[in-house]
Amino acid sequence: MSEAGSIRLTKALALLERLERGALPRVVANLDEFHPDAAEVLLGFSFHDVVLREGIDLKTREMLTVAMLSAMGTAPGQLEFHIRAAMNNDVTRSEIVEIILQTAVYAGVPAAMNAIFEAKKVFAEAAS
Amino acid sequence: MSEAGSIRLTKALALLERLERGALPRVVANLDEFHPDAAEVLLGFSFHDVVLREGIDLKTREMLTVAMLSAMGTAPGQLEFHIRAAMNNDVTRSEIVEIILQTAVYAGVPAAMNAIFEAKKVFAEAAS
Amino acid sequence: MSEAGSIRLTKALALLERLERGALPRVVANLDEFHPDAAEVLLGFSFHDVVLREGIDLKTREMLTVAMLSAMGTAPGQLEFHIRAAMNNDVTRSEIVEIILQTAVYAGVPAAMNAIFEAKKVFAEAAS
Amino acid sequence: MSEAGSIRLTKALALLERLERGALPRVVANLDEFHPDAAEVLLGFSFHDVVLREGIDLKTREMLTVAMLSAMGTAPGQLEFHIRAAMNNDVTRSEIVEIILQTAVYAGVPAAMNAIFEAKKVFAEAAS
Amino acid sequence: MSEAGSIRLTKALALLERLERGALPRVVANLDEFHPDAAEVLLGFSFHDVVLREGIDLKTREMLTVAMLSAMGTAPGQLEFHIRAAMNNDVTRSEIVEIILQTAVYAGVPAAMNAIFEAKKVFAEAAS
Amino acid sequence: MSEAGSIRLTKALALLERLERGALPRVVANLDEFHPDAAEVLLGFSFHDVVLREGIDLKTREMLTVAMLSAMGTAPGQLEFHIRAAMNNDVTRSEIVEIILQTAVYAGVPAAMNAIFEAKKVFAEAAS
Repeated sequence: MSEAGSIRLTKALALLERLERGALPRVVANLDEFHPDAAEVLLGFSFHDVVLREGIDLKTREMLTVAMLSAMGTAPGQLEFHIRAAMNNDVTRSEIVEIILQTAVYAGVPAAMNAIFEAKKVFAEAAS
Repeated sequence: MSEAGSIRLTKALALLERLERGALPRVVANLDEFHPDAAEVLLGFSFHDVVLREGIDLKTREMLTVAMLSAMGTAPGQLEFHIRAAMNNDVTRSEIVEIILQTAVYAGVPAAMNAIFEAKKVFAEAAS
Repeated sequence: MSEAGSIRLTKALALLERLERGALPRVVANLDEFHPDAAEVLLGFSFHDVVLREGIDLKTREMLTVAMLSAMGTAPGQLEFHIRAAMNNDVTRSEIVEIILQTAVYAGVPAAMNAIFEAKKVFAEAAS
Repeated sequence: MSEAGSIRLTKALALLERLERGALPRVVANLDEFHPDAAEVLLGFSFHDVVLREGIDLKTREMLTVAMLSAMGTAPGQLEFHIRAAMNNDVTRSEIVEIILQTAVYAGVPAAMNAIFEAKKVFAEAAS
Repeated sequence: MSEAGSIRLTKALALLERLERGALPRVVANLDEFHPDAAEVLLGFSFHDVVLREGIDLKTREMLTVAMLSAMGTAPGQLEFHIRAAMNNDVTRSEIVEIILQTAVYAGVPAAMNAIFEAKKVFAEAAS
Repeated sequence: MSEAGSIRLTKALALLERLERGALPRVVANLDEFHPDAAEVLLGFSFHDVVLREGIDLKTREMLTVAMLSAMGTAPGQLEFHIRAAMNNDVTRSEIVEIILQTAVYAGVPAAMNAIFEAKKVFAEAAS
């Protein structure tokens, strides 16, 4: 890994830790088992190159991510992760509800129903 | 149209007018030509039942809509409309840029390229 | 909930009961736990505003829903529900088979394979 | 082309002619220019192997196709073709309207708006 | 089943056996339980009419299939099957990794993450 | 732009030039007009971080990209670009045909029809 690469990954992983405290070892181990470059390629791009950019705060970025993943409907595990990450970064339960209801308008009611299923898992944890 | 229906549609159309000043006659005529109930069914649901709800402000809701439509990639005309509507409601050009770059992470680079195409049409109008 | 809202929801829930006898308490509890307005917003729109409209009978509407959900491929749980609902409303097993084979043409063979998986669960119940 | 292949294609093309009178030479020329086998592979499968099957009548099959293409939102040209084909096979304008409004429930309002755009082109022809 | 049909299915099933040794009885039983024609319609088209065509070798075709299913993200079970089928037909683990990283570019990072999940199941089997 | 960034972008742009000779100024100008970082973020990731990786040769990578974009169906302009790029990198017309026919299996016949439309534009240029 190049020196530049290493700083990029370090910053990306620091953001991952902000999204969900303690997720870092699990996420990195999962990617490293797949390929040693996967964390750098995927998280370096996602978190360092894009999500860490200025111009939109992290709370709003996580709201956008929840909206996109709910609308696309193809990554329920990632949607659950980002609902949790959103709530870890000041998005309220009420805001999650509103994002998901808005998904029904733009992507259809089944997309909203799927997102409700993921959100309720996160809400249940938060309540316990 | 029931009395309740009529209030619902009136409120929905008032929101449409906030999204793009002057769009109302064109949008409503388009839907009425299709079917007299279409405006009530589609805009009543979208705007009155969902987007007008409290809990997230209109600026943020338009950011979420731009994110969803960019990620889905199936409605470029609606995406162009909502980029314009977002900018009419205090979303900055810089924020549109950031939303679209974030789309590349969650929906792929071609989705971002398509959204850039629509955004540049709106930016060009705003600049002129 | 407004008086108009309440009639709308009541009619929507009566349709839900026609789709699957006994599903009402489970579906409503699921939505109420998410947010007290969710049933009204999502089921009021889906069932009262749209599916209960005249012009296409319920049997055909459920065939259309099975076709759409099979083709989209993003909501297997909802697809299973609507295959069951279709068969509860006079759609035959043979018609389900034909819809799913037609999905292979318009959305690809994997979409059909996914729908076959859901259909076989419903067929197995019906046979037992 | 094998003898069996030729009967299969002949039947497929006869169905194409029922979907839109006069479309056959244009559709076949388009596919033949791409590859001499394309008509057999694509139309043989679509029309002979699937749509010509018994169990659902052609009118209902075209309604299903309009529903699937509207929901998927990725093939506006094919959607326009099948709205026209549906209306050529006894689907009424009112039924097209209802299918498209139902699309809003299952695939979102933008999907319905896109389908309205295609439907209005076909309705305008029918009216002239 | 016509004589021509029977040869077509026989060739399709021989390819299925090349994709995964021993999968044939399970796949055919699954389809036959759904409808006696399903194997002919779905596998005859997929494998005989298309994948068995000359012009691209089987190894490359399976790479293309893994790319398409990863990008679409709607058929994880089929994706797992085709990652295994690819590796049974000379696609290396390293090539699977590269296809999936390329998916991140064209369909987004969550699509790649989903594919990584399926690939790791297949890699674990191969390692044991 | 950091030194590391500049090398990354330089390599990405060199690949772009291999994909389509002369496309570089147009693509970069398009992205720079949108935002000065867009070329680095989008092309740096796509081309430097992923497509330039070893393990799969460029010809095969372009075949995979054509397969993914055909199957997704949401970026016809990018599909046209990559069909041209594939043919500029030793993919034959016959291979493009086979990829697109294979798309019909995994993503449906309309996806293949859309890709045929784009391919024929590129084939026509190549023939003239």
